[in-house]
Amino acid sequence: MQETRLDTGRIRAARRVIDPVFLDTPLYRCEALEPALGCAVSIKLETANPVRSFKARGTELVATQLADRGSRAVVCASAGNLGQALAWSGRGRGLDVTVVASRFATAAKLDRIRALGAKLELVDGDHELARERAAAIARYDGIRLLEDSLDLETCEGAATIGMELVDAAPSFDTVLIALGGGALATGVGHVMKALAPEVQVICVQPLGAPALTHSWHQRCVVTTDSTDTIADGVAGRYPIPAVLDDLLVVADDAVLVRETSIITGMRLLLEHAGLVVEPSAALGIAAILEDPDRFAGRHVVTIVCGSNVDLDAYHRWVGATPLHRP
Amino acid sequence: MQETRLDTGRIRAARRVIDPVFLDTPLYRCEALEPALGCAVSIKLETANPVRSFKARGTELVATQLADRGSRAVVCASAGNLGQALAWSGRGRGLDVTVVASRFATAAKLDRIRALGAKLELVDGDHELARERAAAIARYDGIRLLEDSLDLETCEGAATIGMELVDAAPSFDTVLIALGGGALATGVGHVMKALAPEVQVICVQPLGAPALTHSWHQRCVVTTDSTDTIADGVAGRYPIPAVLDDLLVVADDAVLVRETSIITGMRLLLEHAGLVVEPSAALGIAAILEDPDRFAGRHVVTIVCGSNVDLDAYHRWVGATPLHRP
Repeated sequence: MQETRLDTGRIRAARRVIDPVFLDTPLYRCEALEPALGCAVSIKLETANPVRSFKARGTELVATQLADRGSRAVVCASAGNLGQALAWSGRGRGLDVTVVASRFATAAKLDRIRALGAKLELVDGDHELARERAAAIARYDGIRLLEDSLDLETCEGAATIGMELVDAAPSFDTVLIALGGGALATGVGHVMKALAPEVQVICVQPLGAPALTHSWHQRCVVTTDSTDTIADGVAGRYPIPAVLDDLLVVADDAVLVRETSIITGMRLLLEHAGLVVEPSAALGIAAILEDPDRFAGRHVVTIVCGSNVDLDAYHRWVGATPLHRP
Repeated sequence: MQETRLDTGRIRAARRVIDPVFLDTPLYRCEALEPALGCAVSIKLETANPVRSFKARGTELVATQLADRGSRAVVCASAGNLGQALAWSGRGRGLDVTVVASRFATAAKLDRIRALGAKLELVDGDHELARERAAAIARYDGIRLLEDSLDLETCEGAATIGMELVDAAPSFDTVLIALGGGALATGVGHVMKALAPEVQVICVQPLGAPALTHSWHQRCVVTTDSTDTIADGVAGRYPIPAVLDDLLVVADDAVLVRETSIITGMRLLLEHAGLVVEPSAALGIAAILEDPDRFAGRHVVTIVCGSNVDLDAYHRWVGATPLHRP
């Protein structure tokens, strides 16, 4: 395969650094979902851990390095999951963690960032403004800025999910990956292309936050003026050129899905898998719903990447009335 | 420790027979739950697998033995989780599986038993009548009757959970175990007493289905005329003498909890852990809610043993209005 910024040997080594509570997550066939989707579906579940998302795989690497070098502080921008994960990983290593987030971020995520002892700073704008502010804090305070998807630890941490998929001696032929900044997609995609190149790597992004998907199709960075999606975890506007380069190497496709499909995906995961997930974690199911012919007869793995959701919003989306039974 | 029917060596060996998809389940600290409970809480999550409960750890042992001996059929009575698990394990080994259940059993469980290819027979009575009917089928057809909690495979399969708790080098001091027929409690309890005797083993049963708890306290079998609980998975009336004997060896206490506490436990697991669970899986949290002083300052593991629940009932119990935020 063509080179990416990621390194398979470093990804293997990362597994020895990451707290085992985040590793070897459940991977299982979910037959109850299959009649509604028309294909075999396996779930890789990244929510049954202390921060309820996959992000700590990356922050464990960063926090370990910082602690080893005697650093005392780190700052990141976050829609909420990276911030929680960095707060958790930093706390265990005596690091002062600052998280910058949009004041419109999911309240449940902001609550947990505070509860984990991080300093939380809110900006009156979207995630891109939070990124600017985090960079300014890093410059001013002279501390490490952790940049999601740009910093290799975030990609190679996420890539350990791919290693676990490959180690499971896959019977699947397709992996569906939520596409936000690109750490999860380039991480898992790199491992698939390196070690299981027969598996199709398909990235999924909301129509309301399509910048990186448009960039992938046009093979150059495309930005957008705004985002409009409930999938807060993947709502970026400014793709990072180096991440796009990697994504062009490892992704077989990148597709966009409607909000209604994301909501139906969340509902199906609740009804047939018993899983409460955040919108970003339903993107894979949404992609199947939008193009069932493409996936008919295939065996798809979807990475359920997070479950940090405001329950009142969740009930509003998914509906609290007795749900349809098959 | 005093002897039980279980054998630590056989439990170790069981891990090599059980499909890995059911093993090494998540075990993680859930700090978000702790302010409401006043103690440290870790979750052992047994729902992220193809049958959404721990029961397949036992049925994998039974089905393997039957297949090795050339048997072709097996029957069990079930409130729904054992039946699903036996259907899954039997299907993979070419066994004809018959499950007898109460027609009042949770519909979601019965649907899955059918979907997994088992023959489902419903009786017009409760779980004890289903047990009688299953025994009659076994005699008439000359096939193996799998009896939950009596048959050692069900206890030693469940005991592999205990092995995983011990292997995690526990920082916890208490394990809370849902008490139904007793397979889970005697299984996990045996391993704790054998390998981590400093850990307190506390069994939890609903006030509305108290037969085995009363039996444990009186040190002889006590039956009840009826049950009245939403915790369908643990609603037995006729404790098995041999199981009681083992429970007397391994349990440090057995407590009863109210239905309202079970419901509050389910709600807390949803609000603070993002987990949809069936009532039996909330018994441990209910026990903490009913006696917070007892657990104050301790580190408790609760085994979240199943998530097979009718969603309409779940919404009715837990409430669908925007939930209290801390």
